[in-house]
Amino acid sequence: MKFDIMRDRLLDGLNNVMKAVSSKTTIPILTGIKIDVTNEGMTLTGSDADITIQTFIPVEENGDQLINISETGSIVLQARMFNEIVRKLPTNDVEIEVSNGLQTHIRSGKSEFHLIGSDASEYPLLPEVSTDQQFAMPADLLKAIIRETVFAVATSESRPVLTGVNWQINDNELICIATDSHRLARRKTSLEQLPTDVKSVVIPGKSLNELNKILDESTNPVEIVITSQQVLFKADNVLFFSRLLEGNYPETSRLIPEEYKTNITINGKSLLQAIDRASLLAREDRNNVVRFEAFDGNIVEISSNSPEIGKVEEQIQVETLEGENLKISFSAKYMMEALKAIDGQDVVIQFTGAMRPFILRSVHDDAILQLILPVRTY
Amino acid sequence: MKFDIMRDRLLDGLNNVMKAVSSKTTIPILTGIKIDVTNEGMTLTGSDADITIQTFIPVEENGDQLINISETGSIVLQARMFNEIVRKLPTNDVEIEVSNGLQTHIRSGKSEFHLIGSDASEYPLLPEVSTDQQFAMPADLLKAIIRETVFAVATSESRPVLTGVNWQINDNELICIATDSHRLARRKTSLEQLPTDVKSVVIPGKSLNELNKILDESTNPVEIVITSQQVLFKADNVLFFSRLLEGNYPETSRLIPEEYKTNITINGKSLLQAIDRASLLAREDRNNVVRFEAFDGNIVEISSNSPEIGKVEEQIQVETLEGENLKISFSAKYMMEALKAIDGQDVVIQFTGAMRPFILRSVHDDAILQLILPVRTY
Repeated sequence: MKFDIMRDRLLDGLNNVMKAVSSKTTIPILTGIKIDVTNEGMTLTGSDADITIQTFIPVEENGDQLINISETGSIVLQARMFNEIVRKLPTNDVEIEVSNGLQTHIRSGKSEFHLIGSDASEYPLLPEVSTDQQFAMPADLLKAIIRETVFAVATSESRPVLTGVNWQINDNELICIATDSHRLARRKTSLEQLPTDVKSVVIPGKSLNELNKILDESTNPVEIVITSQQVLFKADNVLFFSRLLEGNYPETSRLIPEEYKTNITINGKSLLQAIDRASLLAREDRNNVVRFEAFDGNIVEISSNSPEIGKVEEQIQVETLEGENLKISFSAKYMMEALKAIDGQDVVIQFTGAMRPFILRSVHDDAILQLILPVRTY
Repeated sequence: MKFDIMRDRLLDGLNNVMKAVSSKTTIPILTGIKIDVTNEGMTLTGSDADITIQTFIPVEENGDQLINISETGSIVLQARMFNEIVRKLPTNDVEIEVSNGLQTHIRSGKSEFHLIGSDASEYPLLPEVSTDQQFAMPADLLKAIIRETVFAVATSESRPVLTGVNWQINDNELICIATDSHRLARRKTSLEQLPTDVKSVVIPGKSLNELNKILDESTNPVEIVITSQQVLFKADNVLFFSRLLEGNYPETSRLIPEEYKTNITINGKSLLQAIDRASLLAREDRNNVVRFEAFDGNIVEISSNSPEIGKVEEQIQVETLEGENLKISFSAKYMMEALKAIDGQDVVIQFTGAMRPFILRSVHDDAILQLILPVRTY
């Protein structure tokens, strides 16, 4: 194998695939990045066995020569070291040559590195994914869906299936749900050409967070293929594979109340900032709980106290307040994350009493629903 | 005590004094910040017993009213909490009121915090510093002197006096020296009106690092007062006190060779980058050592190798090479830090053989001298 490549493009590619490489892997070859050079271009692959990311750099793009290939071939190079070397090379022209089997030479300017690679045939093969039932959505929509749901997955492994986001396909609707059993985030999206052979899968939250880092805020389509054990996201020159979580995702629709006793419309940003301030004095040993009281005159009061340090209270004028007055307590963290997912718009909050779950929605849009279980303090 | 203050100015002041507050202090009152309000303005004090920082916010500045005082007084508030509260207040107008002794109320917009303060009379008094022998230098010069020396102090406490920078006063010259016994940094500065009653003190490296963070890159004068146990830096509205280290600083001048066998002039930036690359493959268990070889044709070769991973070599064309050819090995970290202190200019490196200390200097300027002890590998 021998080729010249533009350093900037190689770094971009490494930035993507490095997101899949973990220093904690128990499979030694996965501490490496696989490089495959064909006459079409260079493919980089990184994996931690759960997530696999592959990126392709073509020989030529928009009339620019990105790679100059003298000899095709494959090698696996230690990921962290290779990435650091490329980052620090002195010129934008990098020559990579493999000789005598695994001896790899990296040359740039007057600098020359010699690394011992690993045999590419030892690197795990990519999962086979049939692409006959793929669907697509713009990258920015996919990022929004991830952002609005993934924060609510469980962080504890006591029920592994809750560490993922449940994607359900129902006619022309994709329904994404995450819950850690104390709160729930649900996002519905109408899409065309959804597959008919898959009804429900659970994608690890960690995979979706990594995918979100790789995708641009663009309207470029991301193609999605769901199989029984894997999901594949295809964006520009990047393939992102994730294994799916096994196990049945719990039925959550019965958690959502159907009738409400108190309806409040309030500016989401003002509420978020008031909760943020109140959380400074919320007792951390009690799950960071703040109090919320709605009373006559369209007033909501947010308060919290810590016996050792002090207390805080703040009143907010709400847009509308319908139904019964209310005193309720909840986790400041859950409320702030739910409000951030709704993103600064006016929100409707609907309560069914101090001990029942309540929901948040944007006034403009029914697509996102956030549900939070209160905490008993009164 | 009762006053209104502009939130931005209060935050600026807190940013300064918070640098002295440590969560690790064993003196409970020092987890707090002392607030003193007089008719002239507000003084904030933070301390970890080694460093004390005091900042003053005047009632009025350049015709702008910064503080509106209803009642003078003093209180100590828990530093981290007070800082976070001020940071998150909703408006730029903050009212602070102390009632019933220690009950402190912080109001901004519709938000109201109630904290329990501590008695200001329990806060340690500032050291008494007589100002009759003070001298001054521009803030940017003081920052440069700190940057060029402080990195070379010892990090281990086995010889406590080496964790500080030795400031010697010799007629009209301030000589600052730091060494961890493997390398040494020395900076000489000509100054007027240096004190005559102090010859040599040792300022803790940690204090100088914190001072560097507070000072602006400006030519505003910083006044310096050195006493037998304390040093005080006065800049704009900030007072920075540090205790001095006890013990005799070692005599270092005899370490610096007087004759050289190999003189090299080389571009500092090129050498720094080559060392940085070579250090990627330097064996970490051997103190990150790289090899340096100077030979005929004005060539220097930097190399390193790690038997498990690979090796690297790089040639650099030097400006001049006088004297004997040379093979020497040294810590990449020490060399990079020395080159950064000289800051990208052409440097002169003078060697007396592979096992003797060598020195680095800027070609333009004799003020900075960096000395490094080599490592035996040949």
